[in-house]
Amino acid sequence: MLIMMQSDASREQIDRVCERIRELGLTPNEIPGAMRLAIGITGNKGPVDPAHFTRLAGVQDAVPVSRPYKLVSREVKPESTVVEIAGRRLGGGALAVIAGPCSVESKEQVLATARHVREHGASFLRGGAFKPRTSPYDFQGLREEGLMLLAEAREATGLPIVTEVKDTETLPLVARYADVLQIGARNMQNYSLLEAVGALGKPVMLKRGLASTVKEWLMAAEYVAARGNYQVILCERGIRTFETLTRNTLDLGVVPLVRGLTHLPIVVDPSHGTGVAQAVGPMARAAVAAGCDGVMVEVHPRPENALSDGPQALTFDMFAQVMDDLRKVAGALGQPVA
Amino acid sequence: MLIMMQSDASREQIDRVCERIRELGLTPNEIPGAMRLAIGITGNKGPVDPAHFTRLAGVQDAVPVSRPYKLVSREVKPESTVVEIAGRRLGGGALAVIAGPCSVESKEQVLATARHVREHGASFLRGGAFKPRTSPYDFQGLREEGLMLLAEAREATGLPIVTEVKDTETLPLVARYADVLQIGARNMQNYSLLEAVGALGKPVMLKRGLASTVKEWLMAAEYVAARGNYQVILCERGIRTFETLTRNTLDLGVVPLVRGLTHLPIVVDPSHGTGVAQAVGPMARAAVAAGCDGVMVEVHPRPENALSDGPQALTFDMFAQVMDDLRKVAGALGQPVA
Amino acid sequence: MLIMMQSDASREQIDRVCERIRELGLTPNEIPGAMRLAIGITGNKGPVDPAHFTRLAGVQDAVPVSRPYKLVSREVKPESTVVEIAGRRLGGGALAVIAGPCSVESKEQVLATARHVREHGASFLRGGAFKPRTSPYDFQGLREEGLMLLAEAREATGLPIVTEVKDTETLPLVARYADVLQIGARNMQNYSLLEAVGALGKPVMLKRGLASTVKEWLMAAEYVAARGNYQVILCERGIRTFETLTRNTLDLGVVPLVRGLTHLPIVVDPSHGTGVAQAVGPMARAAVAAGCDGVMVEVHPRPENALSDGPQALTFDMFAQVMDDLRKVAGALGQPVA
Amino acid sequence: MLIMMQSDASREQIDRVCERIRELGLTPNEIPGAMRLAIGITGNKGPVDPAHFTRLAGVQDAVPVSRPYKLVSREVKPESTVVEIAGRRLGGGALAVIAGPCSVESKEQVLATARHVREHGASFLRGGAFKPRTSPYDFQGLREEGLMLLAEAREATGLPIVTEVKDTETLPLVARYADVLQIGARNMQNYSLLEAVGALGKPVMLKRGLASTVKEWLMAAEYVAARGNYQVILCERGIRTFETLTRNTLDLGVVPLVRGLTHLPIVVDPSHGTGVAQAVGPMARAAVAAGCDGVMVEVHPRPENALSDGPQALTFDMFAQVMDDLRKVAGALGQPVA
Repeated sequence: MLIMMQSDASREQIDRVCERIRELGLTPNEIPGAMRLAIGITGNKGPVDPAHFTRLAGVQDAVPVSRPYKLVSREVKPESTVVEIAGRRLGGGALAVIAGPCSVESKEQVLATARHVREHGASFLRGGAFKPRTSPYDFQGLREEGLMLLAEAREATGLPIVTEVKDTETLPLVARYADVLQIGARNMQNYSLLEAVGALGKPVMLKRGLASTVKEWLMAAEYVAARGNYQVILCERGIRTFETLTRNTLDLGVVPLVRGLTHLPIVVDPSHGTGVAQAVGPMARAAVAAGCDGVMVEVHPRPENALSDGPQALTFDMFAQVMDDLRKVAGALGQPVA
Repeated sequence: MLIMMQSDASREQIDRVCERIRELGLTPNEIPGAMRLAIGITGNKGPVDPAHFTRLAGVQDAVPVSRPYKLVSREVKPESTVVEIAGRRLGGGALAVIAGPCSVESKEQVLATARHVREHGASFLRGGAFKPRTSPYDFQGLREEGLMLLAEAREATGLPIVTEVKDTETLPLVARYADVLQIGARNMQNYSLLEAVGALGKPVMLKRGLASTVKEWLMAAEYVAARGNYQVILCERGIRTFETLTRNTLDLGVVPLVRGLTHLPIVVDPSHGTGVAQAVGPMARAAVAAGCDGVMVEVHPRPENALSDGPQALTFDMFAQVMDDLRKVAGALGQPVA
Repeated sequence: MLIMMQSDASREQIDRVCERIRELGLTPNEIPGAMRLAIGITGNKGPVDPAHFTRLAGVQDAVPVSRPYKLVSREVKPESTVVEIAGRRLGGGALAVIAGPCSVESKEQVLATARHVREHGASFLRGGAFKPRTSPYDFQGLREEGLMLLAEAREATGLPIVTEVKDTETLPLVARYADVLQIGARNMQNYSLLEAVGALGKPVMLKRGLASTVKEWLMAAEYVAARGNYQVILCERGIRTFETLTRNTLDLGVVPLVRGLTHLPIVVDPSHGTGVAQAVGPMARAAVAAGCDGVMVEVHPRPENALSDGPQALTFDMFAQVMDDLRKVAGALGQPVA
Repeated sequence: MLIMMQSDASREQIDRVCERIRELGLTPNEIPGAMRLAIGITGNKGPVDPAHFTRLAGVQDAVPVSRPYKLVSREVKPESTVVEIAGRRLGGGALAVIAGPCSVESKEQVLATARHVREHGASFLRGGAFKPRTSPYDFQGLREEGLMLLAEAREATGLPIVTEVKDTETLPLVARYADVLQIGARNMQNYSLLEAVGALGKPVMLKRGLASTVKEWLMAAEYVAARGNYQVILCERGIRTFETLTRNTLDLGVVPLVRGLTHLPIVVDPSHGTGVAQAVGPMARAAVAAGCDGVMVEVHPRPENALSDGPQALTFDMFAQVMDDLRKVAGALGQPVA
């Protein structure tokens, strides 16, 4: 159930509706919109009777929500969400490019990469400081030192930072540095972490789990939104299939369909989605042509020496070429590059 | 093993090499190239000694082939294959658009569709006359009547016909009408059918099986090529995964990688690849941006009345819009539309 | 729609019902049962009105069928089908063991194997004479010579023969020798072949396609049954997943559920289902414990020299041990070994 | 690298070897065995030279380890691990049955279930107090109250408790009550949680992730072992595939193969593995026949009223029948029921 308030509804009227919802043993969720406020109701087992609300002052309409995800569904909020990140915007029309190394490895590496991607038009810097790795014996990231190097690179280039948070223990630390908190594919259903980033209120980039349906992905986003944080960016990064030519199977086909289901912006990561540097450029172009809000790619000054995921990293020259191509494709389809 | 002949090698020299190969109990396969002829050797269990050939007259080089598919590998034929179809070309740079109904249903339907797609820039007409269907009780196509209607539409529009052949029994009949013989996903490993179309020498469009790896797909193409028919077009049409939002998962990520493995052209079918009309346009654009040689889409005058696959058919208006978009994307990347 | 005839219905009454069905433009399918005959109606688009039949003489009831597969569904025929094969039975309670080499390679190999599996309790001999192989350059079977060797082994041991038919061209030849015609996983949706074996009337073993749902598998069986051949044995042989430790993922979980959906017997092939000899015995035992009607395993005198699928072949000693174990498990659950 | 100590090696000799390992910048991991102690070396990038150790006093041998998982591999510890749980044992030959409700819902429900499963031969009680759910609006468990009810049931029946821990925040609380800490499929690669339960030293049941390869699963177990906790039980519970007849595809084929790769015991969960109550008994029998160390099944007094996963819960009568059957199958194969 979603309560649409009139565009001139007062704070008192809104509070009265929320109070009524609580009286019924349910939970109100305020969802700010461009034109007017909506109040999502969650916690109900079955349908809620609209008659509880339609005669309250300031209420325009009470509409049932058919999807299992409610707050993130486009039914509930028809206009697309634009996530504000340190003065920049993701979603809402322009194409955002997020680029940087898989792992932060050294000051020289991260600064050189940040400057290069900035120069060629990236709007955000990515880089991992805490790395969840399949083997306990693999490089796990530079941790706080890595975060400090990212902050230095932000200082030098002005690019906001997207970096992964892997557990609730290190969340306060990571949140001190990050502009966008990335939830990795392995953690997409780590609900305690989702609730914690939901409570924090910082922009979140939620990667799709490698065996997760779109519905489960949106339910994970709902965990964040249910704590009051609507600043969620979805990131398609490939699913696991039988094919071994690519590391994962990038599921671009969901991009146009996700648009109809949710108001959240969607970014595509062709680096993890293919695992092969030579396929990253073509699939970044394809993602833009499919209509995404942003692409995220891994770039490394010397991929052959990378401490993680070298085979999928773009060289500096490759990245420059990819940006040229993305500008052409986005331009042809009338999408500005942020 | 691949024998590269000198560019001025004579017919006698070529014949002598083939004879030598047969003396060793192996099979020679002549592979014509733009610059010179190559002779692929198949039938060997282990490596073949190059010394058997390098001193024969007209031989430039004898090179081992590392892939399990040989005749279709780019190792063996570095230049891309261009398939000649009734005076039109598929592969070699320009973008080909293949469009038409899933099934041929009536004269009015197929003619109206053929005229519409022709007018908006399609270069080939698709349409099914023999339909393999999951249920024995579903519409199985108009059979020969469908082929005749396709021929009539070709007559009226000049568009060559792409149509499916589902078994060796109806192959002679279908081959009398078709310009391109389509092998469906369910038949990708129907080796008897592959051998039969290989022996026939007509252009073949080979759809990827819905649980087939790229390697298996190229091995299936090798079956056709091993019978002397190199006019093979690969068609990516989605693989089967756990996701149910789309009918299949369109695996665009293989497009740029297949290029490096084989000289055969590759076409993408976003209609079967997504199963949802609203996703067809975005994924057709994405396929072009990923670098394919062609796209194949289903178009129907009234999708809601289609006898098969209505949910994925484009309306006439949608098709016109898709063509506009494809021209923009292809144009931006410097690819002409055929 | 299914017309249940009275147990004492006469031939004339049956014919009259069939005639009525044809008058409605539909197709009657006679389904013999232990107690009485049923007539399945196929070819209808929507529901059929029972009133057309209930007042005809000899008709007991007219019941709607809810499944998309009709003739093979347990709704239509509650009692389990027992397939009669050269005097032996498959289905109906006892456990059948089908064993033999992947490919027939030589007289010595097939005779020694047939004798060994016979001695240890197998009831059927399997062996491939026509082998569909992923590569056109791999061993494709001894063809008719292989069939003759199988016949010789049948002569020597009394074991009926299960062998694969890979296309309609060789079907008449294979059918002259085979007691059970095996349709391989790659051909599960080769509808022309299914129709041809349906028309032939010989027992058919239908392997599940490696990306086929149970529903699609039963629809494939329906193709055979719709031609009048109800002697169909289902064979679960593993599906394709992301896991690479095993060649396929043996989907035993469908065994108990398939029972409720269809009256056809179900056999499990743990050799293809795992691809690893050491796992074949445990999974054969598991299949019996899950309640299947038979298991099919590959046995070879010297697996290390096998021309196909050596890694999954049981040695003679391993097979003897497997049979001991199967007798124990089947015995514990009250199932006799055929 | 694994250092095998002599059976009479002294504490000083062991300490000297560990010191030498640390001098090389690597990490020693003591692995107690029935006959003698081994010391696993982790943290090396490439091979370690055995000469560093072979001449130290008390060292019998220094052997390279080829698997990426080391401490949990059977190479490193050939004898099977037996996990001791509150005086009971899991692994080492006997069959353990773990049974109970999906979620703890009430005192009456959990006590009645515990008594019933105890009476029919279960050795452990399962029950969820903290439930990770796909939707934030679904029942999330009774939390501490649920743990207290489990403890009460343990008191009443003597059955040790297996219960899920879903995050590090609630780990201390759950660990106060649980005898075995279950890590759910969604958390299999939640490395922070794995490290935390590794440090705690309590028995851990590690469910396989629904898109995890066996290798990744064993790497996850390695995370626990690398913190010094070798009391790890693997639990196969089905993987995600395209088939929708079952909730997941129970991958029994890995059971016999996992045995060769690791010394850890393996349990099978046919309740989640099929999602259909009627398939649970057959697949529990199949799991025993395949050679597992235990089965875990969900039981509920009134499945139709269950707050979670009702469709897969066994009724009391069904559970009694399943136990009878398991005893028969295990008995036939010479495996005692614990």
